[in-house]
Amino acid sequence: MNIRIVAVGKIKEKYLNQGIQEYCKRLGRCCKLEIAEVADVKAPETFSRAEEMQVMDQEGERILKALRDGAYVIALAIEGKSFDSLQFAQKLDSLAVGGTSNIDFVIGGSLGLCPQVLKRADLLLSFSSFTFPHQLMRLILLEQIYRAFRINRGEPYHK
Amino acid sequence: MNIRIVAVGKIKEKYLNQGIQEYCKRLGRCCKLEIAEVADVKAPETFSRAEEMQVMDQEGERILKALRDGAYVIALAIEGKSFDSLQFAQKLDSLAVGGTSNIDFVIGGSLGLCPQVLKRADLLLSFSSFTFPHQLMRLILLEQIYRAFRINRGEPYHK
Repeated sequence: MNIRIVAVGKIKEKYLNQGIQEYCKRLGRCCKLEIAEVADVKAPETFSRAEEMQVMDQEGERILKALRDGAYVIALAIEGKSFDSLQFAQKLDSLAVGGTSNIDFVIGGSLGLCPQVLKRADLLLSFSSFTFPHQLMRLILLEQIYRAFRINRGEPYHK
Repeated sequence: MNIRIVAVGKIKEKYLNQGIQEYCKRLGRCCKLEIAEVADVKAPETFSRAEEMQVMDQEGERILKALRDGAYVIALAIEGKSFDSLQFAQKLDSLAVGGTSNIDFVIGGSLGLCPQVLKRADLLLSFSSFTFPHQLMRLILLEQIYRAFRINRGEPYHK
């Protein structure tokens, strides 16, 4: 399975980078993993809603370019579908069994994802009703994908 | 407001410790914050369900001792109530307005919380339907409490 994580913006915090690297290392033993980071667009607090929409559109264009043709796209969205760890593991397993080898996850910028990206997604996945920092979200997602592989391999892991 | 986080087990990962320290520093400007770490009980993979329950009970006793008399106790539990960031901020604000100055959060060990702790809790709070590592949960919780203070102060922050 080839997993690509398309994420907006650089990780600024050193500790998050270290955690992300740790899970990339672990996941590298389970799948082919790639992180495609697309540049964010500066959005000052003073931006109007219309200006923010423009930022999301610009970031959205970059995201769409970074997605692979034919990949199954899972976009993280607060209003998406909730899974528990076991259901998520089963979802990834059923994709693999069904012949899907490319899965692209999308983590938007701090403003969220534009409609075009949401439309391109095959699945909208919600991790929480809480808003998390999108940089922390990258670590949370990697851990959960790793957990899914462990569950699917029947290795001891809390479900 | 005095916030105590009662959590089972030491944080082993250096990057998580750094992230936790970062948010403790930020939160120190908003409230009196204290982390009460109680020792975990070793639970090998080979433990039966009954043995696991014993571990949870032992950890539960330690948690109950670490909780302050009269504190409003919020226990993190996957089956608890979901909040979004704004609702959570409002909950903390309404507790403060109602005269509650001590709030104790509880993060269980890798096996979860025993019934006695769940019973002592005034609120069961669910962050996600996914299972997160309890060590990562400490970082996620601190970030969300910090976000709540920012929201309640009217400071710019994504809700």
